[in-house]
Amino acid sequence: MSLHIGVDVGGTKVLAAEVEADGTVRRTARRATPGRRVDAALVEQALTEAVAEVAGGRPVDGVGLAAAGFVDAARERVVFAPHLPWQGDDVRRRLAERWGTTVALDNDANCAALAESALGAAVGVEDFLLVTMGTGIGGAVLLGGRVRRGRNGMAGEFGHTQVVPDGRPCECGGAGCWEQYASGNALVRHARSRLGQEPTVLEGLCGGDPDALVGPMVTEAAAGGDAVALAAFASVGDWLGVGIANLVASFDPPLVVVGGGVSAAGDLLLEPARRALARSLVGAPHRSLPPVVRARFGPEAGVVGGALLVRGR
Amino acid sequence: MSLHIGVDVGGTKVLAAEVEADGTVRRTARRATPGRRVDAALVEQALTEAVAEVAGGRPVDGVGLAAAGFVDAARERVVFAPHLPWQGDDVRRRLAERWGTTVALDNDANCAALAESALGAAVGVEDFLLVTMGTGIGGAVLLGGRVRRGRNGMAGEFGHTQVVPDGRPCECGGAGCWEQYASGNALVRHARSRLGQEPTVLEGLCGGDPDALVGPMVTEAAAGGDAVALAAFASVGDWLGVGIANLVASFDPPLVVVGGGVSAAGDLLLEPARRALARSLVGAPHRSLPPVVRARFGPEAGVVGGALLVRGR
Amino acid sequence: MSLHIGVDVGGTKVLAAEVEADGTVRRTARRATPGRRVDAALVEQALTEAVAEVAGGRPVDGVGLAAAGFVDAARERVVFAPHLPWQGDDVRRRLAERWGTTVALDNDANCAALAESALGAAVGVEDFLLVTMGTGIGGAVLLGGRVRRGRNGMAGEFGHTQVVPDGRPCECGGAGCWEQYASGNALVRHARSRLGQEPTVLEGLCGGDPDALVGPMVTEAAAGGDAVALAAFASVGDWLGVGIANLVASFDPPLVVVGGGVSAAGDLLLEPARRALARSLVGAPHRSLPPVVRARFGPEAGVVGGALLVRGR
Amino acid sequence: MSLHIGVDVGGTKVLAAEVEADGTVRRTARRATPGRRVDAALVEQALTEAVAEVAGGRPVDGVGLAAAGFVDAARERVVFAPHLPWQGDDVRRRLAERWGTTVALDNDANCAALAESALGAAVGVEDFLLVTMGTGIGGAVLLGGRVRRGRNGMAGEFGHTQVVPDGRPCECGGAGCWEQYASGNALVRHARSRLGQEPTVLEGLCGGDPDALVGPMVTEAAAGGDAVALAAFASVGDWLGVGIANLVASFDPPLVVVGGGVSAAGDLLLEPARRALARSLVGAPHRSLPPVVRARFGPEAGVVGGALLVRGR
Repeated sequence: MSLHIGVDVGGTKVLAAEVEADGTVRRTARRATPGRRVDAALVEQALTEAVAEVAGGRPVDGVGLAAAGFVDAARERVVFAPHLPWQGDDVRRRLAERWGTTVALDNDANCAALAESALGAAVGVEDFLLVTMGTGIGGAVLLGGRVRRGRNGMAGEFGHTQVVPDGRPCECGGAGCWEQYASGNALVRHARSRLGQEPTVLEGLCGGDPDALVGPMVTEAAAGGDAVALAAFASVGDWLGVGIANLVASFDPPLVVVGGGVSAAGDLLLEPARRALARSLVGAPHRSLPPVVRARFGPEAGVVGGALLVRGR
Repeated sequence: MSLHIGVDVGGTKVLAAEVEADGTVRRTARRATPGRRVDAALVEQALTEAVAEVAGGRPVDGVGLAAAGFVDAARERVVFAPHLPWQGDDVRRRLAERWGTTVALDNDANCAALAESALGAAVGVEDFLLVTMGTGIGGAVLLGGRVRRGRNGMAGEFGHTQVVPDGRPCECGGAGCWEQYASGNALVRHARSRLGQEPTVLEGLCGGDPDALVGPMVTEAAAGGDAVALAAFASVGDWLGVGIANLVASFDPPLVVVGGGVSAAGDLLLEPARRALARSLVGAPHRSLPPVVRARFGPEAGVVGGALLVRGR
Repeated sequence: MSLHIGVDVGGTKVLAAEVEADGTVRRTARRATPGRRVDAALVEQALTEAVAEVAGGRPVDGVGLAAAGFVDAARERVVFAPHLPWQGDDVRRRLAERWGTTVALDNDANCAALAESALGAAVGVEDFLLVTMGTGIGGAVLLGGRVRRGRNGMAGEFGHTQVVPDGRPCECGGAGCWEQYASGNALVRHARSRLGQEPTVLEGLCGGDPDALVGPMVTEAAAGGDAVALAAFASVGDWLGVGIANLVASFDPPLVVVGGGVSAAGDLLLEPARRALARSLVGAPHRSLPPVVRARFGPEAGVVGGALLVRGR
Repeated sequence: MSLHIGVDVGGTKVLAAEVEADGTVRRTARRATPGRRVDAALVEQALTEAVAEVAGGRPVDGVGLAAAGFVDAARERVVFAPHLPWQGDDVRRRLAERWGTTVALDNDANCAALAESALGAAVGVEDFLLVTMGTGIGGAVLLGGRVRRGRNGMAGEFGHTQVVPDGRPCECGGAGCWEQYASGNALVRHARSRLGQEPTVLEGLCGGDPDALVGPMVTEAAAGGDAVALAAFASVGDWLGVGIANLVASFDPPLVVVGGGVSAAGDLLLEPARRALARSLVGAPHRSLPPVVRARFGPEAGVVGGALLVRGR
């Protein structure tokens, strides 16, 4: 039986997993990401350990890396990543030589799109957009059943389209980027700003410390009907829908899949997004609106997609 | 010799032309567009007259219609058009029967993209975006050498992506649409708001009547160094670049072509747009910026593209 | 017994009334306002008739005019009014001569502030701001028990402070003015945009015709719990509170009174405004927030204030 | 001869000075401000030393404190200050007892307004607004020759009126505050964002290190005609004028005085502000626009105003 390993190289953690052809995740291994300002060798050492732990001595048929960063069009290099030390060097080839196996590389949103396309919410759909809502926003464009990477491999960077002139500053150096208004960070910021102003179960969940508030607490509170948490989802969901309307105006896709950590909230997030889409999209009464559905794969989208990437190579 | 006729069905006028295979425009005929609230038969009568005038009794091998409106994915119908009376009826087939010849239909921006792709600024480029800046903004997406129309045939409606929350109301029913800030209308509005406040040659050009001010006057004044006209181009060009940055973040194309009436101003418009693109695009230092170039075809883009459409059918 | 008449000269109608010293309104008379593009004599004729009707032959001790327009600092002239034909001529003196009695003049918001100060929601409060929310927004500043008119008599034009850069165009020639987001017009626009998209009793109230929808219908529907109407009040109330926060940051008043037609909705409007004020105001935890209360006088604020004006002269 | 000392208690430094009745500044002493998270006693020790140094053993007739923070309406306490450790305690009385002399207290913008009113740009003008543009924006309201402090002593906090919905986050906890767009910080941010993108003498002035760029370098470069620096002043000046238009719509004052560090740039800042005021102010053609003039007192406005405060007590 063949052994294909997907590795999600995120800004805070590395997750490696054996993934079967049908997407079943078997053995997993985790490491903390050493950070951005360290030597790249430290990150690669963490990857090597995680892959070895999953392999457990078995021969490896291929490793697929899903990296949180800009991957070049040839899928050989991480050109730039806000949370990783790679800066354009030929990381795919180097790791393939080090590990003595086939290695494939793509950015994490593209890998997630591959997983949804082959095994998830977009099976049988040739064209769709994926929007991943985690700390920020990632994205991928599928046309004719293929991920479209663009000239530089940077297509799908929806999170950094400007939606508010002179708006909130963004880590990318811009201002008013979509992900400043529709993301896990935006969700938490919104909820945090209400603490101490309105009664909310979030006070208890975060122990009264606004800095301890994290996204899953807001989801939990919203699911229980907490007004402050629901207002945060209403705001973030509305912005999600406005941004999706912009994408639909440009691409006119038959389907939009929403993944990433915040999508675990399901309709708490997607219902306001669908309403905003219907309200904002040009010519809405004269067209079929694309369904906006939740991704099948949550935190494992990267490893599943990574494994599919190297299987399909 | 074969006779292919392109017809540009615009909101104010109909232009029909014999177009040779190399894009050369021969005989042309014009009619006023009867308007939106008239019977569709009046518009079709105007088209019939214009086509007959161009044909001059010769047999016609095909007519390609470039329509200012939403054309369905099958390219049979004008689903909706702000300035035309067609509302979803099967106009292509009806005219083909009436004229006894092959008829092809697409929206005007898609036709213009075809012209630029085959004979204009994008020859030899498989993937590019076209942005047409006239009264409003139109657009087209080319990937793999083909115009991508999307599920409803409405891909490329860039002009109605929202760039200012709660912004200027748009004819589409939305608010803050890109074309409210980057278009011929926006150019004239900007210049008009300065009349009587700062010295400008525009006062003379429009005879002191702000309502008589039109885009070409602003272009002429800007070319002559008029500060008010230059400021109008700086504003509109900046917004053009901000919107292009949003498109490039999403599509990562190797080329952006700018057509439409305002593009006649050339670098007066494109230079501020390029600066804004370089300033606004995510990851600009880590990527190749796409060239932003002027379209080859100006007011004849529709008829040339229409004729190409029916030739290629 | 003395006879003092207040006259509210609005954009659509003239209301004259005998007003007693305690604010009780006795006989009233109404006329349609002849419009802006007519001869001023027509408006003055309508005023004369209405005053005569109220007087019914009795001698008049004074008439106070509350005009919907900019009144000069000396309170002699209507400098400019969007819906009245007066353009800077000496209207107070002319009418005093014509009627052979004392005539006083001020703008309608200042008159309303006088009414609230002497007999209404601000009795006993030396300093307060009045915000009147009708078709647009008017305002008045009271300090030390006196209406402050400013250098040109134009203080209190809060409705035309810019709250959205590049925002909705305003009748004043500006863009993004507060009254475009917080006014009766904004309320109706918000509700109208949802018709046909979500179930709402407003469909029935306006007979399915969006153009027939008016503010009181939205108030009625909101009072009955209609979600679309409540969302319209939530939006307009939120913007009301944001604008009040701006005023409080500048003036730090002990009281804010909200009048005008929309204030008839009471807490439907004021509760979201209070929440937005608490959220938006700088240093809110370190200061006393001013109460935001509803004006006592509704549609009669102008005539009561006008009569007080001439009594106090 | 009497000895009155003004003390400017700023976020980064303490400046004490002997000030004569005509505003002449004699002996001065400086100390660094110990910071916000220290014991208040450390700040008071620094003040005591600076006052003693200026006094040089002479008996002191009074000390006036101009503090960078919210001062209560009774002028006894610093209620809240972003950069000082005082948090509502009775600082005026405590220092008066410690120093055995008369002590007066007000916030720095109010003191500056007093200086301009008595001896500066507003001599002879009973009503005016002061806008101080330094790191942020401060403000003061003068009516009838008196500083108006409002209910909580917080009138004039113009810098924290919201001008961009969902805009740049502000240290005050809000978002889109005016001072995020019109201040020394905004000036430097604007210039910094262009470094490395366009040729500018600022590269040399800051030694190529964007973090070393400070406001006076931008002023120097703009005075020499540098395009990047001029663009920064154009942006900040434009926002200054837009905000002043909002204040003028509300207050209709006969004069606006602009002080603070950035005002040293004079017309480089004020000319774009005046243009934006004329463009943005409601009813501009029907009214007298207030002159927008530079304050007489620059960095010494606080000590001069502080000394006047205690002289006038």
